[in-house]
Amino acid sequence: MTAPNPPARTGADLLCETLLAHGVDHCFANPGTSEMHFVAALDRQPRMRCLLGLSEGVVTGAADGYARMAGRPACTLLHTGPGLANGLANLHNAKRAASPMVNVVGDHATYHLEHDAPLTSDIESLARPMSHWVARSPSADGLGEVAAAAVREARTPPGRIATLILAADHSWGATTAGVPAAAPLPRALPPDAAALLQAAAALKRGAGTVLLLAGDTLRAEGLALAARIASATGARLLAPQANARVERGLGRVMIDRVPYVVDKALAMLKETTSIVLVGAKAPVGFFAYPGKPGSMLPPGCEVITATRPGQDGLVALRELAERVGAVGAAAEAAARPMFAARRDLPLPAGALTAAAVAQAVVALLPEQAIVCDESVSSGREFFPMSWHAAPHDYLQITGGAIGIGIPLATGAAVAAPGRKVVTLQADGSAMYTLQGLWTQARERLDVVTVIFSNRRYAILHGEYVQTGAGVPGANARRLFDIEDPALDWVALARGMGVAAERAETAERFNAVLAAALKQGGPFLIEAVI
Amino acid sequence: MTAPNPPARTGADLLCETLLAHGVDHCFANPGTSEMHFVAALDRQPRMRCLLGLSEGVVTGAADGYARMAGRPACTLLHTGPGLANGLANLHNAKRAASPMVNVVGDHATYHLEHDAPLTSDIESLARPMSHWVARSPSADGLGEVAAAAVREARTPPGRIATLILAADHSWGATTAGVPAAAPLPRALPPDAAALLQAAAALKRGAGTVLLLAGDTLRAEGLALAARIASATGARLLAPQANARVERGLGRVMIDRVPYVVDKALAMLKETTSIVLVGAKAPVGFFAYPGKPGSMLPPGCEVITATRPGQDGLVALRELAERVGAVGAAAEAAARPMFAARRDLPLPAGALTAAAVAQAVVALLPEQAIVCDESVSSGREFFPMSWHAAPHDYLQITGGAIGIGIPLATGAAVAAPGRKVVTLQADGSAMYTLQGLWTQARERLDVVTVIFSNRRYAILHGEYVQTGAGVPGANARRLFDIEDPALDWVALARGMGVAAERAETAERFNAVLAAALKQGGPFLIEAVI
Repeated sequence: MTAPNPPARTGADLLCETLLAHGVDHCFANPGTSEMHFVAALDRQPRMRCLLGLSEGVVTGAADGYARMAGRPACTLLHTGPGLANGLANLHNAKRAASPMVNVVGDHATYHLEHDAPLTSDIESLARPMSHWVARSPSADGLGEVAAAAVREARTPPGRIATLILAADHSWGATTAGVPAAAPLPRALPPDAAALLQAAAALKRGAGTVLLLAGDTLRAEGLALAARIASATGARLLAPQANARVERGLGRVMIDRVPYVVDKALAMLKETTSIVLVGAKAPVGFFAYPGKPGSMLPPGCEVITATRPGQDGLVALRELAERVGAVGAAAEAAARPMFAARRDLPLPAGALTAAAVAQAVVALLPEQAIVCDESVSSGREFFPMSWHAAPHDYLQITGGAIGIGIPLATGAAVAAPGRKVVTLQADGSAMYTLQGLWTQARERLDVVTVIFSNRRYAILHGEYVQTGAGVPGANARRLFDIEDPALDWVALARGMGVAAERAETAERFNAVLAAALKQGGPFLIEAVI
Repeated sequence: MTAPNPPARTGADLLCETLLAHGVDHCFANPGTSEMHFVAALDRQPRMRCLLGLSEGVVTGAADGYARMAGRPACTLLHTGPGLANGLANLHNAKRAASPMVNVVGDHATYHLEHDAPLTSDIESLARPMSHWVARSPSADGLGEVAAAAVREARTPPGRIATLILAADHSWGATTAGVPAAAPLPRALPPDAAALLQAAAALKRGAGTVLLLAGDTLRAEGLALAARIASATGARLLAPQANARVERGLGRVMIDRVPYVVDKALAMLKETTSIVLVGAKAPVGFFAYPGKPGSMLPPGCEVITATRPGQDGLVALRELAERVGAVGAAAEAAARPMFAARRDLPLPAGALTAAAVAQAVVALLPEQAIVCDESVSSGREFFPMSWHAAPHDYLQITGGAIGIGIPLATGAAVAAPGRKVVTLQADGSAMYTLQGLWTQARERLDVVTVIFSNRRYAILHGEYVQTGAGVPGANARRLFDIEDPALDWVALARGMGVAAERAETAERFNAVLAAALKQGGPFLIEAVI
């Protein structure tokens, strides 16, 4: 069988050129046969950085981490419906994080679909729940326009998931169509004046009002504005339970989160008479429980949407600060106690507990580290302790779809070379996408993964008790516990080319973590707690 | 916080009782909070065997393997949209295999959906492409009827994917409703008389006619009937490229498959004037390629559907055998050469190649082994060699969604205790669902996994050449190769509690395989080829 002639410029070339011209130059991928011409196009564009994930949960989760730190979309390359399906859980997290992303999902040639070949499936039906925008390639010539539209969608504030289904015959079809010129980026919409008026009035009532920030306003500038507003009015500053990215640590505003546990959230918010939402949604229970409310707000609480997602929260905060008189040096000085100041950060000693792990990470965290937190129940100690850690970015699982931690860290490290990434990772969740460790090794990424090795889905033990069924029996324990056999995380990491050590005491953990943070490249620590 | 009162009998209890009453007593699961009351119900039913998968691809793939060997459905337990999404790729394979399966997908309480809590998604949209039937629980009281309907759907021949979305409040709601009585199982429909008449006529024309069998007819009885028909008429016997289960080896009919590679399939079928389909679809290309046809049949080839999937293929073959005069001792004797007879099966020596691995497995395969084949390009040697292996069942990836091999073997071993399972597993595909090794260790399953460790997606190298783009460049190689670092499969397996060894010569592979087949429990061999 002889190879066919070298192709002319293909639709895939046009797609690739358009992505690059519109600022998309990272491609997280796990390709298949129907995407071969797109791979050939990538091959002709060394400017496009291609990163392989050994399962699609790694691909989409890494693209999410990249977007959160780079502030712009990467593209993913996924193979037909099943390849997309494998990446959907982390797309779900990315959609909840409002991360910009362009997915290229390969499909059969248009004329091949009628044959219902084995890999045929309804890709649109799979894509829609986890995408803001889904389109199918119209032709080889039309791939420039549709790719430009995908990037524009992805970059529409606060960030959207755009999924482009690429037919193989459009990918390999010849084209001479030009690359669409890059248009100005879509901008955040201005806040509504009436909403700000109402918000300012509620804030001025002070005690009883909560100012709930989400999205971009959880970075230094937004937080500083919000702190001045809170200190000037007596309103309470809060963040949602899960956030795409928060700037935290020394010198940053100590903003608390709405707790995950329903009873704690209800208790925290029970005196709230008004809540002012800046890009946030009114807090609700992560799950429903018999006899407990779905909304975390007390009955009669006034809900004021100062800005919706996609409106400019920073502009809103600046205007609210003006309206409540929280401007000038005096207001700044008054807000000072809300900013974290240095305190002693001792290292833990003795038994290795979840709290000891958190304490060691807080004490040793390098300046400008990026913390990726999927520690689930084990890591609840970290957030309150880490107000006084070195300044860092804090990235969380946002959509409750476990298996984001390792991929998220992978993408964040790609986006932010020179910054150390620390992943706080529950063991059960880690197993969903442990394949991401290989990508960290392949790309020599500067990631230290801390596995909270409690050998169980600890959160489910807690949730089971809430059902009133008593102590978990044989069947429940077989579904909750990951012992018998215990996972050997050191072996798993080394099997994928990542150096690793186990720690069973606080002293050992301190030493291993300190060494791991000093060296370059990926490292995994199994913290047996 | 005090625990609530012990619950009365819940909707989840009714669901669980109904599943058991209707013959579903295995639950492959990875549960979450919204499914806690169902877990509590499972806990009250020790007759239900619960098996944990550490990712949902393992859960659905194992349920597929179970169904293929047990001939009846297991249920799966999956956590909301993202949990289902993680299992969709192997549901796709199971749907293509026509495996019966009942998926229970937990969702929020009905009244909680309006809050759009983080894990909320459009579960129906995700489920439909990979399910034949999707329903939502109507109420706690209605869970018996809907569960019975789900099992009936799953058991409708040839086998269907039934997905039941279980609202948390229906799961925890009290009910006194009774368990629906088990109705007679749906039976395969009789063949159409006119279709059989047409098929018999085509078969009588002999040379130029292909008899293409799928589904249940690829077991011993159907194959024996088909062999008599073929030898009596001169028609050619073939199976599709991918099949859920074929009975093969010594004493069984040597039926060839339509090749995966398009040019080879076209060449094999180029003289075909009529094709008679028994539960099969007319052969098409797995993928489309520029300038190549989608149908593998020559222009003008007559396509006769003797039976559609869901019609009784054995009845059809019996009637066709009568009509073409392929009955009686003489017909049986004439068909004898189509059955595999013993030949020398020497062990390989020297360099370890894909062919050497296949040769060793063929030589050492125990009686009544179950071979699960996801060896992709590396295993193409196994099928033609293994006609003369000991009698075995042969299970394949059916839908092209990689990551089925390890889970499939896991479920097959659960369904068939006392039989040795051998997994022929490509390394790239293995990484998708390597978590299944842990379930093999947890359940002490008798599975030997052979990893074809070529450290690349070898099939993509071949497909790339077909694009005419020449030799893969830097970006393509970064997406096709799994070296730098090489995966250490021995470490990965041991990390999940599975004993493992590496082999780099044929002699070493022979020795390790022979030892692995003799001992009980799971074992992995990394065959470096």
